[in-house]
Amino acid sequence: MPELRLNLITREWVIIAREKGKRPEDFISAREKKRLPEFVETCPFCPGNESKTPDEQYRIRDEKGWKIRVVPNKFAVLSKEGERRRTNTGLKKSVNGVGTHEVIIETPVHNLTTATMPVEQLKEVIQTYKDRFIEIYKDPRIEHVIIFKNNGPASGTTIEHPHSQIAGIPVIPLQIRSRIENAMRFFDDTGECLLCKTINDEITDGARILSNTEHFVSFIPYAALSPFHIWIFPKRHSGSFSDLRSEEIWDLSINLKSTMAKLYYGLEHPDFNYVIRSGKPGNTDSEFIHWYIGIVPRVAMASGFELGSGMYINPLMPEISAEFLRGVRIPANE
Amino acid sequence: MPELRLNLITREWVIIAREKGKRPEDFISAREKKRLPEFVETCPFCPGNESKTPDEQYRIRDEKGWKIRVVPNKFAVLSKEGERRRTNTGLKKSVNGVGTHEVIIETPVHNLTTATMPVEQLKEVIQTYKDRFIEIYKDPRIEHVIIFKNNGPASGTTIEHPHSQIAGIPVIPLQIRSRIENAMRFFDDTGECLLCKTINDEITDGARILSNTEHFVSFIPYAALSPFHIWIFPKRHSGSFSDLRSEEIWDLSINLKSTMAKLYYGLEHPDFNYVIRSGKPGNTDSEFIHWYIGIVPRVAMASGFELGSGMYINPLMPEISAEFLRGVRIPANE
Repeated sequence: MPELRLNLITREWVIIAREKGKRPEDFISAREKKRLPEFVETCPFCPGNESKTPDEQYRIRDEKGWKIRVVPNKFAVLSKEGERRRTNTGLKKSVNGVGTHEVIIETPVHNLTTATMPVEQLKEVIQTYKDRFIEIYKDPRIEHVIIFKNNGPASGTTIEHPHSQIAGIPVIPLQIRSRIENAMRFFDDTGECLLCKTINDEITDGARILSNTEHFVSFIPYAALSPFHIWIFPKRHSGSFSDLRSEEIWDLSINLKSTMAKLYYGLEHPDFNYVIRSGKPGNTDSEFIHWYIGIVPRVAMASGFELGSGMYINPLMPEISAEFLRGVRIPANE
Repeated sequence: MPELRLNLITREWVIIAREKGKRPEDFISAREKKRLPEFVETCPFCPGNESKTPDEQYRIRDEKGWKIRVVPNKFAVLSKEGERRRTNTGLKKSVNGVGTHEVIIETPVHNLTTATMPVEQLKEVIQTYKDRFIEIYKDPRIEHVIIFKNNGPASGTTIEHPHSQIAGIPVIPLQIRSRIENAMRFFDDTGECLLCKTINDEITDGARILSNTEHFVSFIPYAALSPFHIWIFPKRHSGSFSDLRSEEIWDLSINLKSTMAKLYYGLEHPDFNYVIRSGKPGNTDSEFIHWYIGIVPRVAMASGFELGSGMYINPLMPEISAEFLRGVRIPANE
């Protein structure tokens, strides 16, 4: 019998359709992956090509030049210049597209990925996320900032060089509003943060846990929207990613790398997206907002059912996804 | 300057990122399409193979056998048998997966698609949708019914033979609840149906209209979520698809075929999904619910931005999408 599970954090019902008879191995990436070189002369993000990405916004230096660079997105979907202006003509309501859209070049090395990057480098990536996140929120035209990573063609990028993006948008998206309201409502009802309660529950249960480090826990959600959908929650209650402490950055680097390594080695480097979902810096002390990271390997395809209902069909039991990933052997040199 | 547009019906903001410099022609399907035969001996939906799809639920007969068949989905995500039972253990809330999941075989001819199907056949397809929709809602375990079509690999199906699906689910998805509440709120504020008002506005404006027939109008939404995203609205206010009258079925067949033909010939038969969004039969007389059809050709890819914000980025101005499709020449024999 299939099962519908309610994701209490998103309020979305998911159909867990185990009847489809899929096993974890069925989601191993079929596409042949070419072995990438460490350096590509024509890659605008490789060292030596810095002039191809002008207007550098941020840099972490090292003796050889740089470890991280942040540059404007060449295909920015928002414009840095101009005032935020609303237009309201009958049913047509718009805001002009001011905002920020930057690319974070995560390393000079062309062929690394989150799973294979040294923890020290990943720490710099997360530090950069935090610094840019705080900086972009200083712009009074920005209502919401999202940090995300696309990796591989099925994730929406064709750029190979390891990079993330950060976008500051002049509105608060519906989905974000609805999730904040939901968290508030849970707090009204129980006096507890829904995510704090979820962390305790998941650690006690254990069936869906992937990596439990000092400050973070990664796990497959009870109502995961797709096979190997993963959440990483900070154990310390905090409404904003901007509040991340330096010992937490280190621990998150360890947790994120080990979680991504399970996907990388277990599913033969699937394409993936991850996103950081966070309140603004001013939400740090909120009792009901709790920032977190969502990871979605692109191993399943949405159809008309998902489009027409907003509901997902997950053909693999979350507990089976978790068990499979826990069993993945990471090579000793990683 | 990019522009953010508010979709008043979904309440979702869309970034219209015309800065990406894309033209309509850039979305013409790149994948080479093989020419399909009229009949495939191994296809379970082709005539002569009826025994491969047992438990036929519905049939429209003709002198040669059948014009339409409805059968249970072999990969059903919901189970027909059993009682609806809720489970509630702390944060874990579930409903067992009872419901209906059927396949509508739209024609015996293997190589037709909505754009190339005779209007007479499309009329039978829509009649079948209506009959099954009403029938499935009779099951008291079913809370919501969705009719949808996946066409081509990027839409989530690998089955070539023309087919649609209908699913009756034992819960009301979050997205559906939120849109009903939104329509109700608009009615509270204005005393008008938001979709009726949108129809008048779009017809008066004209810039996004594709096909305006006696009872239906197809158009690109003002805040279309992707290039060539299309809505077809019935002009007569009605809360439920079950209320469709026979002259409206005929007119919808004409409108749907001509709209799909613009996509088919203009974009070289892109993969697509369409969905019928409707209240239940009991909502027919609702003042604020108004059923409609949404069509999404799969020409763009969602990335971490969409996953993490619920917001879409549309790289093509809706008015330019509409102008391009209006200009598509349909061959005279269609």
